[in-house]
Amino acid sequence: MIRYAITISYDGGGFCGWQHQANCDSVQDAVEKAIFLLSGERVKVVGSGRTDAGVHALGQVASFSLEKDLAENVIVGGLNAHLPKSIRILSAKKTEESFDARKSAKKKTYMYLMYRGNALPVLYNRALCVGDVNVEAMRAAAKDIVGTHDFSTFKAAGSGAKTSVRTVYDVRIDDDGKFIKLFITANGFLYNMVRIIAAQLVKIGSGAKVDIKELIEKRDRTAAKETAPAFALYLYSVEYND
Amino acid sequence: MIRYAITISYDGGGFCGWQHQANCDSVQDAVEKAIFLLSGERVKVVGSGRTDAGVHALGQVASFSLEKDLAENVIVGGLNAHLPKSIRILSAKKTEESFDARKSAKKKTYMYLMYRGNALPVLYNRALCVGDVNVEAMRAAAKDIVGTHDFSTFKAAGSGAKTSVRTVYDVRIDDDGKFIKLFITANGFLYNMVRIIAAQLVKIGSGAKVDIKELIEKRDRTAAKETAPAFALYLYSVEYND
Repeated sequence: MIRYAITISYDGGGFCGWQHQANCDSVQDAVEKAIFLLSGERVKVVGSGRTDAGVHALGQVASFSLEKDLAENVIVGGLNAHLPKSIRILSAKKTEESFDARKSAKKKTYMYLMYRGNALPVLYNRALCVGDVNVEAMRAAAKDIVGTHDFSTFKAAGSGAKTSVRTVYDVRIDDDGKFIKLFITANGFLYNMVRIIAAQLVKIGSGAKVDIKELIEKRDRTAAKETAPAFALYLYSVEYND
Repeated sequence: MIRYAITISYDGGGFCGWQHQANCDSVQDAVEKAIFLLSGERVKVVGSGRTDAGVHALGQVASFSLEKDLAENVIVGGLNAHLPKSIRILSAKKTEESFDARKSAKKKTYMYLMYRGNALPVLYNRALCVGDVNVEAMRAAAKDIVGTHDFSTFKAAGSGAKTSVRTVYDVRIDDDGKFIKLFITANGFLYNMVRIIAAQLVKIGSGAKVDIKELIEKRDRTAAKETAPAFALYLYSVEYND
């Protein structure tokens, strides 16, 4: 068997998320179908992690094995020919048998995209429109997220995670005057974690007095009720050892 | 009669352009229908200029008159309630009777949006994917467009314009490493002018030897055959005297 790793970008708008679910269109199903159409082999594709309904990906990584030995450009071109325009394979690589897109992942980065100003139709389902938020206040508050913490406050109900402890390596907020991009890099994320953090940072940027350190210490989701919308969230990149 | 000016943003993907045409969905028709639903008055809306099928607007300006005296926030909220999500009224203003969005316009700015890299689904119908173009070469060539010239070389057939002379006030190319934005500001544009210029600049950025000055002097469309796609073009702003 040959093991392959692929990098995938998708517009999450038309999908119920990455993961296969009964009675809905998942990105995973579409990719598995394209692999079957290309290779004639029915395989299970493992993604680096689930993305929720409506969440986009700029660099999702997935792995699978095939009997066939296909050139990397055949994987890219062949799968794209069988995928809808809302899903694109950006690259493919043959890798060692032990590679697992989920278990081998070391770091993941999500981007939350905000737009300062009026709701522009070309940004519909792409960015969260915000007012004239104070990005400096958001940056100061975001520092408290960095580190190894029990993030129970920022975990939606329904999460199957065994532990709520995660290590956030970096939080960065870029601001070009119009677009505000919140990047969070961690060893893993809890269910809705980025969206719940984003909601608190937007509140802080809009003048609310919120102490992120205190929220974390509470370990209680009811202390941070809001969840920012899925359509502005992007799985940005996944890092592996090689 | 009360004269109104409105600023409009739209995703041009689902429209045959700004201007009313038989048997297709134009932005103008949608706005006129929304005005009727809000006010009960059938009016003709004048846009600052046509935009072609698929071209977007971030700041199209249009004018119309109503018997009714409606507050500016009623115009914005009321029209948006009757418009599809792909068209948004950003602002409204009561203005003098003589204001005509087309005839009163002094300067218009178009943006052509390029993305350096892989075709990402969230940029589908939003940006032109380009390779690792040389933006410095594009900037050097773009300088030759500035000034008052006969732009016949950059005018598609079917233009009804009386003269091909236009004054380009400014050409600017922003580059953040991923997105390349070409801004052109002029007193007016010929049919497909920005898209034909954009195609030449992309060729130059990709290493082609093209002399823009020479192309202009030829006054011959066959010297610059390519037209860059409509979906990456944005009517950015329109300037008036007040």
